[in-house]
Amino acid sequence: MEDLKNYIEENKDRFLEELFGLIRIPSISSIDANKPDMYKAAEYWKKTLLKAGVDKAKVYDTEGHPVTYAEKIIDPKLPTILVYAHMDVMPVDPIDLWHTDPFEPVIKDGKIWARGADDDKGQGFMHAKAFEYMVKTNQLPCNVKFMIEGEEEIGSPSLPKWCKDNIDMLKADVIVVSDTGMIDPKTPTITTGLRGLSYWEVEVTGPNRDLHSGLFGGAVVNPINVLSNLIADLTDKDGKITIPGFYDDVIDLPQAERDLLAKAPHNDEEYKKAIDVDELGGEKGYSTTERTGIRPSFDVCGIWGGYTGEGAKTVLPSKAYAKISTRLVPNQNNHKIGEIFKKHLENIAPKSVKVNVKYLHGGQAYGCSVDLPEYKAAEKALKEVYGKQAIPVRSGGSIPIISEFEEIFGIKSILMGFGLESNAIHSPNENMPLEQFFNGINTIPYFYKYFAESFK
Amino acid sequence: MEDLKNYIEENKDRFLEELFGLIRIPSISSIDANKPDMYKAAEYWKKTLLKAGVDKAKVYDTEGHPVTYAEKIIDPKLPTILVYAHMDVMPVDPIDLWHTDPFEPVIKDGKIWARGADDDKGQGFMHAKAFEYMVKTNQLPCNVKFMIEGEEEIGSPSLPKWCKDNIDMLKADVIVVSDTGMIDPKTPTITTGLRGLSYWEVEVTGPNRDLHSGLFGGAVVNPINVLSNLIADLTDKDGKITIPGFYDDVIDLPQAERDLLAKAPHNDEEYKKAIDVDELGGEKGYSTTERTGIRPSFDVCGIWGGYTGEGAKTVLPSKAYAKISTRLVPNQNNHKIGEIFKKHLENIAPKSVKVNVKYLHGGQAYGCSVDLPEYKAAEKALKEVYGKQAIPVRSGGSIPIISEFEEIFGIKSILMGFGLESNAIHSPNENMPLEQFFNGINTIPYFYKYFAESFK
Repeated sequence: MEDLKNYIEENKDRFLEELFGLIRIPSISSIDANKPDMYKAAEYWKKTLLKAGVDKAKVYDTEGHPVTYAEKIIDPKLPTILVYAHMDVMPVDPIDLWHTDPFEPVIKDGKIWARGADDDKGQGFMHAKAFEYMVKTNQLPCNVKFMIEGEEEIGSPSLPKWCKDNIDMLKADVIVVSDTGMIDPKTPTITTGLRGLSYWEVEVTGPNRDLHSGLFGGAVVNPINVLSNLIADLTDKDGKITIPGFYDDVIDLPQAERDLLAKAPHNDEEYKKAIDVDELGGEKGYSTTERTGIRPSFDVCGIWGGYTGEGAKTVLPSKAYAKISTRLVPNQNNHKIGEIFKKHLENIAPKSVKVNVKYLHGGQAYGCSVDLPEYKAAEKALKEVYGKQAIPVRSGGSIPIISEFEEIFGIKSILMGFGLESNAIHSPNENMPLEQFFNGINTIPYFYKYFAESFK
Repeated sequence: MEDLKNYIEENKDRFLEELFGLIRIPSISSIDANKPDMYKAAEYWKKTLLKAGVDKAKVYDTEGHPVTYAEKIIDPKLPTILVYAHMDVMPVDPIDLWHTDPFEPVIKDGKIWARGADDDKGQGFMHAKAFEYMVKTNQLPCNVKFMIEGEEEIGSPSLPKWCKDNIDMLKADVIVVSDTGMIDPKTPTITTGLRGLSYWEVEVTGPNRDLHSGLFGGAVVNPINVLSNLIADLTDKDGKITIPGFYDDVIDLPQAERDLLAKAPHNDEEYKKAIDVDELGGEKGYSTTERTGIRPSFDVCGIWGGYTGEGAKTVLPSKAYAKISTRLVPNQNNHKIGEIFKKHLENIAPKSVKVNVKYLHGGQAYGCSVDLPEYKAAEKALKEVYGKQAIPVRSGGSIPIISEFEEIFGIKSILMGFGLESNAIHSPNENMPLEQFFNGINTIPYFYKYFAESFK
């Protein structure tokens, strides 16, 4: 790999020009009018991958936006890496806050400024160029497949079915994804966990109509009071969720892994200051990053009922509602949690009200142990470029498709991202430092190498 | 009083015609365009009272709508009754549901149908005609004053100041009011209590902006969860309000009075059926009518915060709000309760949020013991006409002006009403049975008589 840096240096203007061609296509998946752009982006990816050296590439229709699939099989007996990326981007509103045209990339202050510069055109493109290098220099140690989808920003509704329909074609030993971030530009980071989600809407019905709170108050049970009691009952003084069986499938992380995770820089004081709170909270016995990363959480995302206008209306309302969510950790099943929550709530509700629990939405958590060879391969690859051990990070957020991949293919995904918080993904003035872009291209070939070696 | 029934019989058509003249004036206090009608109604009352035999009558301007005041002083040494009524009515919407013009009274099925037929033109007029009889037949045993206001339906905002400004003129020994109802047409009823009110808006602020519930959930305290906990903490398993000092000033009613109150017919099964709930609730150790009548209550009238639209948005919101009310009983001070609630909530709130408690609105409760001579006078008067002992009723609602009268004048109000639930006050097709109207006129002279006698 001694020529890798030279290869990047010699071709960098071309790499950028090719990336910019992709960025100029406004492939906003959530806007109907941009549907033709999804096909343009898919074709652009096909062309890019063919040029980079795949044996074959094809744009597949799905029930939604297209998927570009490509592969280079050098030997069916060798291990196979499946690269996942997405060609779609978020809308650009509020457009007024952009300093430049979101779909006309410019380089300024050492950064590419454009929608998709990071998420996920910039990061996806690193894989195309790293692959190109390996092919052109005849160093590819494994088979490589590319699956570039067009619906990530709208929750990947069509991809699971498409994957199942094409499960033989997609067969691989690991999935590699660059769609996450680094702690800072000097600290290589591998995201080893994503939380899952269960999300309900709860409706509590008391009397059949709004009542006068004077004439009825004290004898008729108030559904807002009940809903508040139910919510309060769902956590205890130690911040534990009280639903029986809720923690049954939670696997405690080994102390060694907790120690490694604790290396991610975090400062409670700065964290509190940034969101302007005097005190943090959560489950007893865990740090802030553990509370958001490796432990489940319980949040009411919305609540409403009764009179919410100006002034004082004395009403004992008929109904109260809440949107209630739990974030889940690996090995918890969101459907099972969905059921036990519903049952528990119906159990603890007083007979004076009717409770209707509707499961709105859910997703599995994802976890990747730092002891796995695919993790070690990414760790070693990042050390080649950054000169230090990568830090594993468990993100509190969810990327449901990652845990779906594990369910469908039975393999792990390595989330080796090169984004930075300042890249402002999903926001105006999204950007990607050139250094991160080229470091990404520089790192990925080593991942190929070490991952293939782990099979020997 | 042997000629009372004859007097009513001989004059009943005139009584109705005079009442109809008042009803035809659309004196809706809440509608600006009807302001001139308030003056017309005030002048009509002045004319009516002069005709009935007062010494003098005058329309007074206030900061809002006018008040008609009139008096007949037969001897300053004799006791004085102050009649309170109101000339204003509620709006008539939804007008489509009226079977006849709300301001053109008709008699059908033995009832007067019109806005104000009961509340409070019909009931107020009984006093004018009862007084007329006493004057014309030379039987008046006491002085009588009339205070007819124009803002009852909008909360009597100007009356307390006007009363204080005219406190000497208004001096009396009791206030008598016919603006409440009877349990049924055969059961005389005296309202002996009205609950007070304290009403707050509570704002709970967590982080300085809405956060991603995945990235922050579990470590950052959620203001909706906190608000729910606070509300839940404000009552205990026995339905008692847990605010320290909340019950300090509550006076337990003697068992004899509770027994008397229990005579008001009430059926929990029918009550539950009417509002479609399977179970009632409230403070342990009290019946349904006691829970709404003689005990304080705690109701959240409204709650809101976070995402309340369709579907599932995963947000950890910055703010949550609730409109919280307590109904108070006699001797509880609404301002004191307002303060201790605020302090208590600020005390129990965790440091992870900021709590802002705003006192929106309040009023004192009112209570009248069944042992008082003015109560006994009303009881005896009703027995003359209905042939049985009146039942005292404690209403869960509030008429703030009644407790204000007690504060300003230091005297009790006797709430001797002749309305029925089927009279549909505040609703389309308001009505008043002729029997109730004439029974009212028949009863009031006896109240004069027995009240005056109680001073001997």
